Amino acid sequence: MKKIIDLNSDLGESFGQWQMGNDHAMLKVVSSANVACGFHAGSPEGIFNTLIEAKANHVVVGAHVGYPDLVGFGRRNMDISSNELIADVIYQIGALKGLAVAAGCHVDYVKPHGALYNTIAHDKRQGMAVIEAICAIDPQLVLVALAGSPLIEWAKESGLTVVAEAFADRAYHANGTLVSRKEVGSVLHDPEQVAQRMLQFVNEGGVMSIEGTFTPIDAGSICVHGDSPGALAMAQKVRELLQQNGVEITAFAGRGQ
Amino acid sequence: MKKIIDLNSDLGESFGQWQMGNDHAMLKVVSSANVACGFHAGSPEGIFNTLIEAKANHVVVGAHVGYPDLVGFGRRNMDISSNELIADVIYQIGALKGLAVAAGCHVDYVKPHGALYNTIAHDKRQGMAVIEAICAIDPQLVLVALAGSPLIEWAKESGLTVVAEAFADRAYHANGTLVSRKEVGSVLHDPEQVAQRMLQFVNEGGVMSIEGTFTPIDAGSICVHGDSPGALAMAQKVRELLQQNGVEITAFAGRGQ
Amino acid sequence: MKKIIDLNSDLGESFGQWQMGNDHAMLKVVSSANVACGFHAGSPEGIFNTLIEAKANHVVVGAHVGYPDLVGFGRRNMDISSNELIADVIYQIGALKGLAVAAGCHVDYVKPHGALYNTIAHDKRQGMAVIEAICAIDPQLVLVALAGSPLIEWAKESGLTVVAEAFADRAYHANGTLVSRKEVGSVLHDPEQVAQRMLQFVNEGGVMSIEGTFTPIDAGSICVHGDSPGALAMAQKVRELLQQNGVEITAFAGRGQ
Amino acid sequence: MKKIIDLNSDLGESFGQWQMGNDHAMLKVVSSANVACGFHAGSPEGIFNTLIEAKANHVVVGAHVGYPDLVGFGRRNMDISSNELIADVIYQIGALKGLAVAAGCHVDYVKPHGALYNTIAHDKRQGMAVIEAICAIDPQLVLVALAGSPLIEWAKESGLTVVAEAFADRAYHANGTLVSRKEVGSVLHDPEQVAQRMLQFVNEGGVMSIEGTFTPIDAGSICVHGDSPGALAMAQKVRELLQQNGVEITAFAGRGQ
Repeated sequence: MKKIIDLNSDLGESFGQWQMGNDHAMLKVVSSANVACGFHAGSPEGIFNTLIEAKANHVVVGAHVGYPDLVGFGRRNMDISSNELIADVIYQIGALKGLAVAAGCHVDYVKPHGALYNTIAHDKRQGMAVIEAICAIDPQLVLVALAGSPLIEWAKESGLTVVAEAFADRAYHANGTLVSRKEVGSVLHDPEQVAQRMLQFVNEGGVMSIEGTFTPIDAGSICVHGDSPGALAMAQKVRELLQQNGVEITAFAGRGQ
Repeated sequence: MKKIIDLNSDLGESFGQWQMGNDHAMLKVVSSANVACGFHAGSPEGIFNTLIEAKANHVVVGAHVGYPDLVGFGRRNMDISSNELIADVIYQIGALKGLAVAAGCHVDYVKPHGALYNTIAHDKRQGMAVIEAICAIDPQLVLVALAGSPLIEWAKESGLTVVAEAFADRAYHANGTLVSRKEVGSVLHDPEQVAQRMLQFVNEGGVMSIEGTFTPIDAGSICVHGDSPGALAMAQKVRELLQQNGVEITAFAGRGQ
Repeated sequence: MKKIIDLNSDLGESFGQWQMGNDHAMLKVVSSANVACGFHAGSPEGIFNTLIEAKANHVVVGAHVGYPDLVGFGRRNMDISSNELIADVIYQIGALKGLAVAAGCHVDYVKPHGALYNTIAHDKRQGMAVIEAICAIDPQLVLVALAGSPLIEWAKESGLTVVAEAFADRAYHANGTLVSRKEVGSVLHDPEQVAQRMLQFVNEGGVMSIEGTFTPIDAGSICVHGDSPGALAMAQKVRELLQQNGVEITAFAGRGQ
Repeated sequence: MKKIIDLNSDLGESFGQWQMGNDHAMLKVVSSANVACGFHAGSPEGIFNTLIEAKANHVVVGAHVGYPDLVGFGRRNMDISSNELIADVIYQIGALKGLAVAAGCHVDYVKPHGALYNTIAHDKRQGMAVIEAICAIDPQLVLVALAGSPLIEWAKESGLTVVAEAFADRAYHANGTLVSRKEVGSVLHDPEQVAQRMLQFVNEGGVMSIEGTFTPIDAGSICVHGDSPGALAMAQKVRELLQQNGVEITAFAGRGQ
């Protein structure tokens, strides 16, 4: 039976004259594009151009919603009220849906960004606000969440479809959690090693943990980065090795349609 | 035959902790609410609350799109490129559509705000950008435009339905154009006089011009304001006098549905 | 010996077309104006006008610095890095100093706003960042801080002059801490009662705690509000009662110069 | 007698996570740094770091003030009122002065950015607003202006010191005006040619116009760019050729101090 996996990456993160990443190249690598919605990054014209190019490359689009914090790039925790967060998430998804209609594509999933992503993995109040927002605007939207996080259950209980994701360049503990960025060895830098790990993940359902034991990861997508030449090369290597080994790179949201 | 007219006003223009206008009271007065979309005014939570209250009052919702200029409240002309403007307008309409879905209502029309409204009444490049944006996201959206402006023809030629509007508190020249705000007598302040003028407009299709002659105004909606206690009282008076004289206040976008 | 006290309030918090509070009236009540610097509130033209009017009323000016969060009005905790916070605070103080020079006055103190105020009262990392910022731009600036908070010692150890403040409309515990806003009775609404408490504070150095015992408050300034008609009336009552009882309302920063 | 010229460039234009240009390299090339102030570009922490590095390289600092338009990078004309513009310019200069104090350097001049630069070269209302702002905060600040523009006289009449600048990579008409960017040949791309032209400018006081005749340019500074690898190489070439030919690169603002 053929192995299938989704590759996702954060795109559309330029802002006005400021460029971020290489959307053109990454849209040849990934099957799913997490497109910024204007709150942590992304200005309308740039988002629109990314959507047009995503469509041309048959890449599925997700809403990469974030905290309203451009200068902090959505990476700073913010003690936002539930009602603010619900409305902020709906607003962002709606804006992206509008641009997607105009670009001839559509928004199939939601992947929160940065500090919001990390916070809702474990913070039930903010997590439920994001879930409520998705249910309110379009309950067909899939939620992409951190593998192993409690958010997954909260979302499923609310009726959402959830896809968990693994991080290509991150080390895992034996219990399946990510090694903190503050620890040595938390981020992997060798493209060949990273690609081999992801091949193992697809074939065996897990990777070697930092403690040296095999740890299963229950995930339907792999997150890769493209915000530096090195990151791009690593993402390309992951795709290449997977394909060379017969793995099909296909978006979770586009299958069977 | 019963006379029918639409009353519209700019709502949802608060921003975070800053209040603007009295949406609660105005939603009892108007049949159509031009709801801010976050670029010149409006933050997601406040917009959402206005939409919920609009629905409760059976008030039709339009997207009040503007230039990206919060501190200038969208009142400063901006030499924006066509591609920027197209994407900005789609983004704003999309965001409002998203919040409207969540609020259980929908967006039926677009009325540009402030400097954008004035500019596109006569500037074909920017006007066509707004038209292109509307056609790209939803060509069923009605465009509300200044009565007598060339924008109306450009929009009709592009296939859009257009509703022209008259301003309740503004003086008109004999040729049907607005008297510039820089001239004495351009803005009317007496609620009774304003209401009587609007009754004349509904019954006779025009008003007395500043030059003293009757000037026809080809419009399907009347714009009233609610951003001060005086403005609110004037809007209430217009509604009251029209209804007392058998005029039905109904949204142009809701008729016959 | 004549009793002296300072009254301070948050001013300059309008933003573009959005009004907040009544600076004109409050500048007749207070001796010190905490003027917004553009990050949580305040746009340059409005700030400038407030400074001009502060000078005309001989009111001393302080920089009311906040988190970069307009839509949240600086009331949401934000996990900002120390280097970001240092530069943000310097930037805000510098901007206000520039406008103050142009208005013919000067900035004599710093009072952080909202979530930043509450956070640095107890969070040493962020507190030291604010202190470092003040020392870097102008160590003569006085820091206004919550009475009884550890921030006061950190600032003094860094060489800053600190003035602690009491809140006119808040209840205090017997141990001198504020009663949380979540508890019943935490905010006082009766102007006469509030004024009497502040007279007691000036004369006796403390107020009756919510537990019914006298609690000393070591503070050199009283914070009053002006962001609603009720708040303004209360502030006016405090000033009036203090003056009727021979207390002199004078800025801490202007004395002896 | 030794020839002396100033080289200036726009720096500090990164914003949060978004990088722009190569300040580190350009601070080895220029004698004067036009540092962004947060309105068209520049966030406090990044500005601060640029100032620290400018000081370390003995580069003089100017305030690169712009319209409040981050997403448009200050390149879009904006019909801002005079009072808004005056306060916006003072605010920006003040903020930069504050950060400069903390960085151990100071702000010696003002060079408006982008659309504001182009507008005030000829628009007297906005030009006088910028002049009034500079006079209000610090009349010792030098104004850098387009060579040959009427702004120069307006500023001198107001008592400001003005330094006109030439653009290294732009073609000039025989009458001394810049060839419009819309015309073929308006922007020069060959570093060697550009460097030779600037050597001619320093030695002979002018360059060959696009019409083929020598046109004098009355300027005390040369503007070079560093926002792309090509631009950086061109700027380095200009500096190199000038120095090889005995021209001293020194800031206009630092001489004789």
